[in-house]
Amino acid sequence: MARFMDVHNGFVGVTAEQLREAHRRDLEAEAAEGVHFEHAWLDPQAGKVFCLSSGPSKEAVLRVHEKAGHPTEEIYELPVEVD
Amino acid sequence: MARFMDVHNGFVGVTAEQLREAHRRDLEAEAAEGVHFEHAWLDPQAGKVFCLSSGPSKEAVLRVHEKAGHPTEEIYELPVEVD
Repeated sequence: MARFMDVHNGFVGVTAEQLREAHRRDLEAEAAEGVHFEHAWLDPQAGKVFCLSSGPSKEAVLRVHEKAGHPTEEIYELPVEVD
Repeated sequence: MARFMDVHNGFVGVTAEQLREAHRRDLEAEAAEGVHFEHAWLDPQAGKVFCLSSGPSKEAVLRVHEKAGHPTEEIYELPVEVD
Protein backbone atom coordinates (compact mmCIF):
# COMPACT_ATOMS: atom_id res chain seq x y z
CA MET A 1 0.00 0.00 0.00
CA ALA A 2 1.20 3.47 -0.84
CA ARG A 3 0.02 6.91 0.20
CA PHE A 4 -1.18 9.61 -2.15
CA MET A 5 -2.10 13.27 -2.14
CA ASP A 6 -4.36 14.43 -4.91
CA VAL A 7 -5.22 18.01 -5.75
CA HIS A 8 -8.47 19.33 -7.24
CA ASN A 9 -8.92 22.80 -8.72
CA GLY A 10 -12.01 24.85 -9.41
CA PHE A 11 -13.84 24.25 -6.12
CA VAL A 12 -14.29 27.98 -5.48
CA GLY A 13 -17.10 28.70 -3.02
CA VAL A 14 -17.72 25.04 -2.19
CA THR A 15 -19.32 24.59 1.25
CA ALA A 16 -18.48 22.20 4.08
CA GLU A 17 -21.67 20.28 3.29
CA GLN A 18 -20.70 19.92 -0.38
CA LEU A 19 -17.22 18.69 0.58
CA ARG A 20 -18.74 16.13 2.96
CA GLU A 21 -21.04 14.91 0.19
CA ALA A 22 -18.14 14.60 -2.29
CA HIS A 23 -16.06 12.74 0.31
CA ARG A 24 -19.03 10.45 1.09
CA ARG A 25 -19.17 9.45 -2.58
CA ASP A 26 -15.43 8.62 -2.48
CA LEU A 27 -15.97 6.45 0.60
CA GLU A 28 -18.81 4.60 -1.15
CA ALA A 29 -16.65 3.90 -4.22
CA GLU A 30 -13.27 3.18 -2.63
CA ALA A 31 -13.63 -0.42 -1.40
CA ALA A 32 -13.82 -1.91 -4.90
CA GLU A 33 -10.37 -0.41 -5.64
CA GLY A 34 -8.67 -1.17 -2.32
CA VAL A 35 -8.32 2.57 -1.67
CA HIS A 36 -9.09 4.51 1.50
CA PHE A 37 -9.59 8.27 1.48
CA GLU A 38 -8.32 9.36 4.88
CA HIS A 39 -8.77 13.10 4.89
CA ALA A 40 -9.73 16.03 2.65
CA TRP A 41 -9.03 19.74 3.13
CA LEU A 42 -10.69 22.62 1.26
CA ASP A 43 -9.61 26.18 0.50
CA PRO A 44 -12.91 27.57 -0.87
CA GLN A 45 -11.32 30.90 -1.77
CA ALA A 46 -8.62 29.39 -4.01
CA GLY A 47 -10.91 26.51 -5.01
CA LYS A 48 -8.35 23.86 -4.00
CA VAL A 49 -9.09 20.49 -2.44
CA PHE A 50 -6.34 18.19 -1.12
CA CYS A 51 -7.21 14.52 -0.53
CA LEU A 52 -4.92 12.15 1.39
CA SER A 53 -5.44 8.48 0.61
CA SER A 54 -3.83 5.07 0.76
CA GLY A 55 -4.16 2.44 -1.92
CA PRO A 56 -2.41 0.23 -4.43
CA SER A 57 -1.75 2.78 -7.22
CA LYS A 58 -2.42 6.27 -8.58
CA GLU A 59 -4.70 4.68 -11.16
CA ALA A 60 -6.85 3.13 -8.42
CA VAL A 61 -7.15 6.51 -6.66
CA LEU A 62 -8.14 8.12 -9.96
CA ARG A 63 -10.78 5.45 -10.66
CA VAL A 64 -12.44 6.06 -7.28
CA HIS A 65 -12.55 9.82 -7.90
CA GLU A 66 -13.93 9.18 -11.40
CA LYS A 67 -16.72 6.97 -10.03
CA ALA A 68 -17.46 9.65 -7.42
CA GLY A 69 -17.77 12.28 -10.14
CA HIS A 70 -14.69 14.42 -9.46
CA PRO A 71 -11.65 13.06 -11.34
CA THR A 72 -8.25 14.75 -11.20
CA GLU A 73 -5.02 13.93 -12.99
CA GLU A 74 -2.96 15.60 -10.25
CA ILE A 75 -2.12 12.67 -7.96
CA TYR A 76 1.21 12.40 -6.11
CA GLU A 77 2.67 9.25 -4.55
CA LEU A 78 4.21 9.97 -1.13
CA PRO A 79 6.85 7.44 -0.12
CA VAL A 80 8.34 9.84 2.46
CA GLU A 81 6.62 11.69 5.32
CA VAL A 82 7.57 13.29 8.61
CA ASP A 83 5.71 14.66 11.61
CA MET B 1 -5.76 29.54 14.68
CA ALA B 2 -6.24 28.40 11.12
CA ARG B 3 -4.92 25.43 9.17
CA PHE B 4 -2.81 25.64 6.06
CA MET B 5 -1.43 23.41 3.34
CA ASP B 6 1.62 24.68 1.53
CA VAL B 7 3.14 23.20 -1.58
CA HIS B 8 6.81 23.20 -2.62
CA ASN B 9 8.08 22.36 -6.09
CA GLY B 10 11.52 21.33 -7.31
CA PHE B 11 12.33 18.76 -4.61
CA VAL B 12 13.12 16.05 -7.18
CA GLY B 13 15.27 13.27 -5.75
CA VAL B 14 15.15 14.61 -2.18
CA THR B 15 15.72 11.85 0.40
CA ALA B 16 13.87 11.04 3.61
CA GLU B 17 16.85 12.35 5.57
CA GLN B 18 16.82 15.66 3.68
CA LEU B 19 13.07 16.05 4.28
CA ARG B 20 13.56 15.36 8.00
CA GLU B 21 16.32 18.00 8.14
CA ALA B 22 14.14 20.59 6.34
CA HIS B 23 11.24 19.82 8.69
CA ARG B 24 13.55 20.08 11.71
CA ARG B 25 14.49 23.62 10.61
CA ASP B 26 10.79 24.52 10.38
CA LEU B 27 10.21 23.19 13.89
CA GLU B 28 13.12 25.28 15.19
CA ALA B 29 11.75 28.46 13.60
CA GLU B 30 8.01 28.04 14.13
CA ALA B 31 7.52 29.06 17.79
CA ALA B 32 8.43 32.70 17.18
CA GLU B 33 5.52 32.93 14.70
CA GLY B 34 2.94 30.91 16.64
CA VAL B 35 2.95 28.30 13.86
CA HIS B 36 3.13 24.51 14.15
CA PHE B 37 4.13 22.31 11.23
CA GLU B 38 2.19 19.11 11.81
CA HIS B 39 3.13 16.91 8.91
CA ALA B 40 5.02 16.91 5.61
CA TRP B 41 4.73 14.50 2.68
CA LEU B 42 7.19 14.14 -0.21
CA ASP B 43 6.84 12.87 -3.76
CA PRO B 44 10.54 12.75 -4.77
CA GLN B 45 9.72 11.79 -8.35
CA ALA B 46 7.50 14.83 -9.02
CA GLY B 47 9.56 16.96 -6.60
CA LYS B 48 6.47 18.00 -4.61
CA VAL B 49 6.32 18.57 -0.85
CA PHE B 50 3.04 19.19 1.01
CA CYS B 51 3.22 20.70 4.51
CA LEU B 52 0.22 20.80 6.85
CA SER B 53 0.41 23.46 9.53
CA SER B 54 -1.65 25.51 11.96
CA GLY B 55 -1.00 29.14 12.76
CA PRO B 56 -2.33 32.68 12.78
CA SER B 57 -1.89 33.55 9.06
CA LYS B 58 -0.42 32.58 5.70
CA GLU B 59 2.21 35.26 6.20
CA ALA B 60 3.35 33.64 9.47
CA VAL B 61 3.65 30.26 7.74
CA LEU B 62 5.66 31.85 4.95
CA ARG B 63 8.01 33.59 7.41
CA VAL B 64 8.81 30.28 9.12
CA HIS B 65 9.58 28.62 5.78
CA GLU B 66 11.71 31.63 4.81
CA LYS B 67 13.72 31.39 8.04
CA ALA B 68 14.13 27.66 7.46
CA GLY B 69 15.49 28.32 3.97
CA HIS B 70 12.66 26.96 1.79
CA PRO B 71 10.06 29.68 1.12
CA THR B 72 6.99 29.06 -1.04
CA GLU B 73 4.25 31.44 -2.15
CA GLU B 74 1.82 28.53 -2.59
CA ILE B 75 0.01 28.46 0.77
CA TYR B 76 -3.69 27.57 1.12
CA GLU B 77 -5.91 28.31 4.10
CA LEU B 78 -8.17 25.34 4.92
CA PRO B 79 -11.30 26.33 6.84
CA VAL B 80 -13.06 23.07 5.86
CA GLU B 81 -11.89 19.49 6.32
CA VAL B 82 -13.44 16.03 6.51
CA ASP B 83 -12.26 12.57 7.45
